[in-house]
Amino acid sequence: MTAAEPTPVPDLAHIDGTIRIESHPRPVATPIIMDRLRSVYPHHQVFGEFCTVQGYVDAPPRELFDWLSDTRSLEEWTYSLRGFRETDEPGLWVAQDRLGPATEIYTRTVTNADAMTVDYHCAWDQGEHLWMVYLMRVVDAQVVFDRPGSVVLWTNCHHPFYEENPFPDKAPAGRPVWVGDFWDMFSAGHQLELDNLKAIAEYRHSHDLPLTPDWMRK
Amino acid sequence: MTAAEPTPVPDLAHIDGTIRIESHPRPVATPIIMDRLRSVYPHHQVFGEFCTVQGYVDAPPRELFDWLSDTRSLEEWTYSLRGFRETDEPGLWVAQDRLGPATEIYTRTVTNADAMTVDYHCAWDQGEHLWMVYLMRVVDAQVVFDRPGSVVLWTNCHHPFYEENPFPDKAPAGRPVWVGDFWDMFSAGHQLELDNLKAIAEYRHSHDLPLTPDWMRK
Repeated sequence: MTAAEPTPVPDLAHIDGTIRIESHPRPVATPIIMDRLRSVYPHHQVFGEFCTVQGYVDAPPRELFDWLSDTRSLEEWTYSLRGFRETDEPGLWVAQDRLGPATEIYTRTVTNADAMTVDYHCAWDQGEHLWMVYLMRVVDAQVVFDRPGSVVLWTNCHHPFYEENPFPDKAPAGRPVWVGDFWDMFSAGHQLELDNLKAIAEYRHSHDLPLTPDWMRK
Repeated sequence: MTAAEPTPVPDLAHIDGTIRIESHPRPVATPIIMDRLRSVYPHHQVFGEFCTVQGYVDAPPRELFDWLSDTRSLEEWTYSLRGFRETDEPGLWVAQDRLGPATEIYTRTVTNADAMTVDYHCAWDQGEHLWMVYLMRVVDAQVVFDRPGSVVLWTNCHHPFYEENPFPDKAPAGRPVWVGDFWDMFSAGHQLELDNLKAIAEYRHSHDLPLTPDWMRK
């Protein structure tokens, strides 16, 4: 392959906080990097501001994406979201989050079939401001792991409303919990739910069942 | 809001490996989750199979996406990729990875403007099989953090070729390193590069400069 001459790139050394090979050659940068590696990392550093879980699923990525794209798939692979009904606002669903007594959760699922992103925009108690955002993405494992199947990436960001319920008037009277009380358990909780997702998808794929069950296609 | 009756959902208890509130009510599931939480997590558990870094950037998401969508932005925010030239295969770029002596890296950037995904499909030494995949995504911080700006998510998967160069004949003779030698440093190395990205984007945004520099628009 031939290639044109590269464009000369203006220097960036005037921007504080950059570490580039020109200003920090390998003998300078390597100890900086080594100094940031740890044998262990504290929970808060790994799962404080973001909660990301990810995993391999032995099922075809396109079918997996299609299943997850249906809001009702949450009824299957989540721990506690049940009884999904579409509201009279198209695409906005309401369900119970059985983590809380008498707690409704609203969900609007935003997907992109080309990028295979599946974002669940959710909130407890009200459907006007969907601030609990589950950012998910299905990736073809052939591309990233050289094997058939899927990779699922899943990130939640620690939105400030997790710290304090912005709509206390919408909560059922006397509810003893707020969804943000569970933030510190999200890492293990979401891994558990990703394990559910994997178990269900792999069961169906290995039994030649459609990943999206018939009842969900109706 | 009114809603239709929920569809009855078939039981999933026959699928091994699922933990759902029906089979595992909260008094059963909570100790399982607590038992999986740790005060610290070993490096290999956090960064063994996947290397994900993420962070907040105080710059508008659409402009940030546009900058990252240009393969030549790697020339700016990466530590060691320099001298990008487009090959005669449209969209396939070649550069030097100065981590290795005389090492060429090929890159094809696949983006999705709606999902704001930016995937850099790369490989050392050859451009036919781009197996080093940098999966990135820009997210609107207003949605996930209730503040202006962007969130950048970035995941690499531990592709088996990191363990062994599948195209040794393409490597320059006697090269002492392989890209996979650096896998265990990717967490800190990619965080360093994400810090570069953040520093450059925030410098430009705070100085009313376009995030994508003029030379890159030519």
